[in-house]
Amino acid sequence: MATVCFTKPHHVSANNNHCSSIFLCCFLLSLLSNAASSYMFSDEKRDDLFPEILRDEAVTRLNDLGKVSDADGYLERMFMSPASVRAASLIREWMEDAGLRTWVDLMGNVHGRVEGMNASAGALLIGSHSDTVVDAGIFDGSLGIISAISALKALKSAGKLGKLKRPVEVIAFSDEEGVRFQSTFLGSAAVAGILPATVLQISDKSRVTVQDALKENNIDIAEENLLQLKYNPASVWGYVEVHIEQGPVLEWVGFPLGVVKGIAGQTRLKVTVRGSQGHAGTVPMAMRQDPMAATAELIVLLESLCKRPKDYLSVDSHCDGSTLESLSNSLVCTVGEISTWPSASNVTFTIDLRAIDDKGREAILYELSNRMYQICESRSVSCNIERKHDANAVMCDSELSSQLKSAAYGALKMMTRESKHEVPVMMSGAGHDAMAMSHLTKVGMLFVRCRGGVSHSPAEHVLDDDVWAAGLAILAFLDTHM
Amino acid sequence: MATVCFTKPHHVSANNNHCSSIFLCCFLLSLLSNAASSYMFSDEKRDDLFPEILRDEAVTRLNDLGKVSDADGYLERMFMSPASVRAASLIREWMEDAGLRTWVDLMGNVHGRVEGMNASAGALLIGSHSDTVVDAGIFDGSLGIISAISALKALKSAGKLGKLKRPVEVIAFSDEEGVRFQSTFLGSAAVAGILPATVLQISDKSRVTVQDALKENNIDIAEENLLQLKYNPASVWGYVEVHIEQGPVLEWVGFPLGVVKGIAGQTRLKVTVRGSQGHAGTVPMAMRQDPMAATAELIVLLESLCKRPKDYLSVDSHCDGSTLESLSNSLVCTVGEISTWPSASNVTFTIDLRAIDDKGREAILYELSNRMYQICESRSVSCNIERKHDANAVMCDSELSSQLKSAAYGALKMMTRESKHEVPVMMSGAGHDAMAMSHLTKVGMLFVRCRGGVSHSPAEHVLDDDVWAAGLAILAFLDTHM
Repeated sequence: MATVCFTKPHHVSANNNHCSSIFLCCFLLSLLSNAASSYMFSDEKRDDLFPEILRDEAVTRLNDLGKVSDADGYLERMFMSPASVRAASLIREWMEDAGLRTWVDLMGNVHGRVEGMNASAGALLIGSHSDTVVDAGIFDGSLGIISAISALKALKSAGKLGKLKRPVEVIAFSDEEGVRFQSTFLGSAAVAGILPATVLQISDKSRVTVQDALKENNIDIAEENLLQLKYNPASVWGYVEVHIEQGPVLEWVGFPLGVVKGIAGQTRLKVTVRGSQGHAGTVPMAMRQDPMAATAELIVLLESLCKRPKDYLSVDSHCDGSTLESLSNSLVCTVGEISTWPSASNVTFTIDLRAIDDKGREAILYELSNRMYQICESRSVSCNIERKHDANAVMCDSELSSQLKSAAYGALKMMTRESKHEVPVMMSGAGHDAMAMSHLTKVGMLFVRCRGGVSHSPAEHVLDDDVWAAGLAILAFLDTHM
Repeated sequence: MATVCFTKPHHVSANNNHCSSIFLCCFLLSLLSNAASSYMFSDEKRDDLFPEILRDEAVTRLNDLGKVSDADGYLERMFMSPASVRAASLIREWMEDAGLRTWVDLMGNVHGRVEGMNASAGALLIGSHSDTVVDAGIFDGSLGIISAISALKALKSAGKLGKLKRPVEVIAFSDEEGVRFQSTFLGSAAVAGILPATVLQISDKSRVTVQDALKENNIDIAEENLLQLKYNPASVWGYVEVHIEQGPVLEWVGFPLGVVKGIAGQTRLKVTVRGSQGHAGTVPMAMRQDPMAATAELIVLLESLCKRPKDYLSVDSHCDGSTLESLSNSLVCTVGEISTWPSASNVTFTIDLRAIDDKGREAILYELSNRMYQICESRSVSCNIERKHDANAVMCDSELSSQLKSAAYGALKMMTRESKHEVPVMMSGAGHDAMAMSHLTKVGMLFVRCRGGVSHSPAEHVLDDDVWAAGLAILAFLDTHM
């Protein structure tokens, strides 16, 4: 466990002020106050903005790709499924249409590359994933692939593709959601060189291994050539990913685009509370060891701690206040599953805890565990807290983020008469291929507003003009920095 | 809804004293302090105490009846099942062995009666149920039947059976648990005359109706003769039931027997909390409408209110403080089921609320609902509270209870060298056939200590000497008052 920054809990006052929530609300409201009207799209100079490629065609392609499914009536594309292979063909076709040289690698990732003026320079990689969850929306993953291809196609149509200072390569990763093999990032982790060789022998529900699934699609991969997939860091300049936000913040503040400063670290806990089973009518309240009542108190604690970490943690001499500030703004905690049944003497539930700051997350986990055990002890029930999963936070490269921010600002400015505000900089609570790619190179991400913050659902939606804004921002980034 | 006694909530202090729990604990501890050692069974005068009949044979019969099951490897006897019919034969045999005239009525209840010296006097009915839950213990229900039969057999062996001043009738009710038809008290409700005629047409999982189930066992019952089952109140003197406590109080205070002052009224609620679904990582804490966090707060409220109702209710001019006192001592609240799953926007759970005082229960429900809706409103989630079931409390007859108390005291005194304490008087949180029988006649109940308060489980256990104490108490009651 990493050294924690905050170890001495404050005295917890009953009348604690809700600083972190109020801070966030004030931040959001101040942005909202006049932002929503700022980005009204102008009809002037539309030709320079490639609306046919970056909006109309991109939206058509999103819809077309959204129809490529293994299921009837809903969208489902798992790693190396028949629909995934059809999707890969379609993406490859679009890449070639944009003037890119294409190939499929040993993990089923589809690549499209243009060398530009200096084939030996470090390449800019732009990617996202082509697989989906079950009953998915059509934007998650696909938007990042299609907006990158569209931007390169616009660049081609402006006659600038050959003038790129460095190679640019779009990658459609074959697996990010991990639905089939319960192992996320098969595609990007292979390219980043962090995929363990044993992964090839993981089986799906039908006992088909990753290796078999690839072989069924004429891809022969063995442990010894897994590392061939890894890119040489020296041959790469950086990685950029466009993705739907999957949260409500951009919609709330009225911005189509946001720049991601980092991807939250995550810990998943499984908590089991064991008490005593008793008849609902016959055991007096004072004699109960009720695991459900204990669980309720634990969940109330969890929410309170995650809403107001400042009330529970204090800054010690090794930390500055900014860590606590970033923790307060980024910490999210969720109870995902809970179960009990009549006559059961135990309750189990899961906690998903994420924060941009790893030390802060550890401090919260330390404080949370201590207080949970105290509550259980005071109620004479037993608690077992298992740490099921950990992933450290990934920080985006500040220079690359700054370039993406300027590009997004420029794109939005071109599309509107004026822009009064800076592009929001935000954390990502969800994991993305950029997490894996950060092991290979510097990463940067752009978020695109999605309706109601909804994702992983057919209700997932991005406005046509926001698809356009995403493509235009990538185009501006390529045009300015590549 | 009945007029409530308490409508003005107190100011809820953060440092409220835990009066009801402390009261209960003090009560229990004071009883415990020297009670456990009081009832050491003496070897003197064993012959007068009928240990062979009231303990050894009764225990053997409990074990034998516990083997009569429809399932392999565990105990299950549902209304009119093959095992139930075999159990009825066995019980009828034991009744005849005790000198009783026996018959089976149109609802499958087994009766055994002795007329005594005055066949036209009001009869004392003593009963309990012969059906069980699934994977049941061997004492629930059966102990009440067997201890009554044993007491009458002991009376017979003492030559006193013919000298009873009034008829005594043991009834083994065919259904109390309601497992097969989800309708409790089929047996006793028929005898009490409160069973609606429509009940005959209720179906089990295999679409067999109550009427069909009886017919399969050669019992022809039609709606028009259902009321024939009802006893004439004038022909009945009272009803007595012995039952395991199904709770931990008697074990805690170290007494084999307790007298029941009443059976708690019960309300079952189903609560649905609807919020918004969102990605666990991407929705900031301040923007959440999390139904699970809301539910946790509701359950914490429920527990607090039921542990310390005095902090939430105040006595108004129509009530005396004794109602609040009895409420504080008897109120029990339990969350039985809860369910949610990842990506769900709602949580449902059930509340089981019981109290000896009906007005108090209504007051608690009123206060609970109001506060629950307030919590949901403040969290911008919606709450729906459905009242699924209500049963009013039943008070036992004070004179009959007093006679049972003397009988239990006498029995325990006979079995031990000395007895320092009064027999505990307690409420029943669980429902019993006595609830139905209270519609026909005055009722009284004796509770028997069971290990760990556990029931509805193979782990259910009653000490052999406690079986003996129960039989001896009934014998003493018959000997003294009948």
